[in-house]
Amino acid sequence: MSVPTTPGSAVTDLLGLVALGELLAFERMAGDARLAPDLRRRAALGEMAAAEIANYRRLADRLGALGVAPEEAMAPYVTALQAYHDSTEPRDWAEAVTKAYVGDAITDDFIREIAVALDGPDRELVLDVLHESRYAEFAAAEIRVAVEADPRVADRLSMWARRLVGEALSQAGRVAAADRGALTALIAQGGRVDASALFRQLTAAHTARMAAAGLNN
Amino acid sequence: MSVPTTPGSAVTDLLGLVALGELLAFERMAGDARLAPDLRRRAALGEMAAAEIANYRRLADRLGALGVAPEEAMAPYVTALQAYHDSTEPRDWAEAVTKAYVGDAITDDFIREIAVALDGPDRELVLDVLHESRYAEFAAAEIRVAVEADPRVADRLSMWARRLVGEALSQAGRVAAADRGALTALIAQGGRVDASALFRQLTAAHTARMAAAGLNN
Repeated sequence: MSVPTTPGSAVTDLLGLVALGELLAFERMAGDARLAPDLRRRAALGEMAAAEIANYRRLADRLGALGVAPEEAMAPYVTALQAYHDSTEPRDWAEAVTKAYVGDAITDDFIREIAVALDGPDRELVLDVLHESRYAEFAAAEIRVAVEADPRVADRLSMWARRLVGEALSQAGRVAAADRGALTALIAQGGRVDASALFRQLTAAHTARMAAAGLNN
Repeated sequence: MSVPTTPGSAVTDLLGLVALGELLAFERMAGDARLAPDLRRRAALGEMAAAEIANYRRLADRLGALGVAPEEAMAPYVTALQAYHDSTEPRDWAEAVTKAYVGDAITDDFIREIAVALDGPDRELVLDVLHESRYAEFAAAEIRVAVEADPRVADRLSMWARRLVGEALSQAGRVAAADRGALTALIAQGGRVDASALFRQLTAAHTARMAAAGLNN
């Protein structure tokens, strides 16, 4: 089950991918905060964003300790992750919190699935950067408020969530293509036959979560 | 020397002003990170931004403990602080780090000047939200790198820094005008005759700092 941690290895590739995900999630959420209807909510999304970059720092430090420059480990994934965010710019507050809710949850599911293949300190680190549930609760509560204020919003947000997942899976395909083989091997070591099996699992979890937030799939 | 902390008092006005300053600094710095020439610097400005919102949270919590909704305490200053940022959008990375450097330093000077008029826990809190020097060092180092790469940049950044201070002072005038009297009284209690004396002091400190970073005034 042990995975080597030399530069360019599966572990540094994975830490690089998760680190970049956190960095870009930070930037986009911080930017989306401008869509908030009031200062309280604006600050809340900002704090949700700040939690992402705190996680980024921990992952970047671990990469440094493994002798890999974080920007080098992140480089192969910049195009795909940037494309995901460029193609999913929220148009209003409800879309912004839905994106934060969906994005964080899928990231967490992905990390949990992958963590089993990692060794001691790396496993602990990635399990530790899972998002705090209070942020998910804040986002889910905002979604419910938006739906209660106007039930037609549920359809729009459901469609939006489907688009988010669709874009994420499409970019995940590009990540897999950019991968030097190590990451796919790591996913396989997690007990999955291939990346597609992992994606099917993530999608199923997402569907359950949408239902819980009052959205349909 | 003791200042009452009832809602609408000098202390809650001041905490509201500083809290909003932190919240907007967070948003703008996080947005300016997109101007960074590489992922390492992009993350560094993002982390500098995240430190601001951590401070915002502490100030907002203190306002809550004093029985004042943070958004209510911040409301009188939104127009002025937003106008400052709208009129000082950096066009490139060197301008972004100069803005972060100048803005953080002036904020810290302002907080230090005001702190003397505050009582125990509030004084400790505002002195505690002073920016970590490692962020100022990062920004100053980036300014020096930009100037070394092209000495003409020194003139452009010097002019930019003068504009930042000019806009800040102009918006400070609007803050003073929006003030319900309590804030000005607090400044006077800090040993200053009036707000203008405080602004002159802040400008003098800024001039010294510019010289230290290799920029002229």
